[in-house]
Amino acid sequence: MNSADQRELKKHVGKEAVKHVKDGMVLGLGSGTTIKYMVDALSERIKNEGLDIIGVPTSNKTKRYAESLGITTKDVDKVDHIDLTIDGADQIDKNFQGIKGGGAAHLMEKIVAINSDRNMWIVDESKMVKKLNYPLPLEVIPYGSGQLYRRLNRMGLHPKFRQSGHGGKLTTDSGDYIIDLGLPEITTPVQLGEKLDSMTGIVEHGLFLNIVNTIIVEHADGPETIEAR
Amino acid sequence: MNSADQRELKKHVGKEAVKHVKDGMVLGLGSGTTIKYMVDALSERIKNEGLDIIGVPTSNKTKRYAESLGITTKDVDKVDHIDLTIDGADQIDKNFQGIKGGGAAHLMEKIVAINSDRNMWIVDESKMVKKLNYPLPLEVIPYGSGQLYRRLNRMGLHPKFRQSGHGGKLTTDSGDYIIDLGLPEITTPVQLGEKLDSMTGIVEHGLFLNIVNTIIVEHADGPETIEAR
Repeated sequence: MNSADQRELKKHVGKEAVKHVKDGMVLGLGSGTTIKYMVDALSERIKNEGLDIIGVPTSNKTKRYAESLGITTKDVDKVDHIDLTIDGADQIDKNFQGIKGGGAAHLMEKIVAINSDRNMWIVDESKMVKKLNYPLPLEVIPYGSGQLYRRLNRMGLHPKFRQSGHGGKLTTDSGDYIIDLGLPEITTPVQLGEKLDSMTGIVEHGLFLNIVNTIIVEHADGPETIEAR
Repeated sequence: MNSADQRELKKHVGKEAVKHVKDGMVLGLGSGTTIKYMVDALSERIKNEGLDIIGVPTSNKTKRYAESLGITTKDVDKVDHIDLTIDGADQIDKNFQGIKGGGAAHLMEKIVAINSDRNMWIVDESKMVKKLNYPLPLEVIPYGSGQLYRRLNRMGLHPKFRQSGHGGKLTTDSGDYIIDLGLPEITTPVQLGEKLDSMTGIVEHGLFLNIVNTIIVEHADGPETIEAR
């Protein structure tokens, strides 16, 4: 498929996602390319139908883009609830457990997600897999991260510090590092999540478990909507 | 007891603690007043006996104090292991589970503690209780902390943001906030710890579970040494 076709597909799926938006909603806005097209489609609906929508962005980039299109945004702590969050995902397994954090923003994305009544993910069909095998990102406290790395290594979890484009370790918006776990296959994501939750120095892992409600999958012949839970 | 007597007691217990230090050890150095006297006693042993000791401080304050007394210090990531960490505690229950973090440094203290072969806590006898009821500190990500506060409140955990002396929320060395849980009694610390571990936005709680090996309790008539595990 050429890139013009891919663009059309992303536009299509973005339009499909915003069909679920209703007047008066507080809407979590994810991050990434697909989400950009969704925000385009959202701003069109707001303009054409005069909808009253508040967006809660999961990154500064999304915040700036949404505001440039005239969408009102608020911080997660300035709203009393979020009706629906629309975001992307790096991979989703057959039980609809997901990995996010390829963009190093999974901490803020998870904070918005857990504060949302419903979550919708938009993905292309290559992201739908039987078992998760995408590098699992951990946001970690810099202090002691060398010891944590060795511990993860001893546990056979294949850790790797994520590097920034300028050399040196990548730093997140919260001033933390990212360690990616290069696991060949994640067969028991819930157990792995609990193990990682219990480890000191890990701020948040990129497993999004029992979170997504609706998935919109981008196929060449059009979007498919899956009600996961 | 007058303050001169208390000082003598703290000196005494500090000396008692450093009796466990052996030549060549990498030693985690906790924080707080009692620890200051322990560091004094340590520096005397180093000078008098020519011991070769490396200190791994859990706070910048301890680092500066230890170095002012000529003790060599290294960052936790610059040593391959820590033999023993000597620290204080806010409270210890009958199963030797503890709470730390009254000084808002429990994240760094826990990172040093879990990387230590053995942990020793020095406390006065008022800290030894049947059941924990000291305010339990949580280090939390500022983003979404208002939602987290409301969630903890709904769970009946009596959250309260810790304030700085200058008004406004206290900020830790990692740029996070502290929420103290004012629980009347913590009857099942392990279960509470697991629950808090699983919650997004909490970087680290102040429960130190199954961590301490040796406790030195300061009594008016002298120190008592307890081998906990």
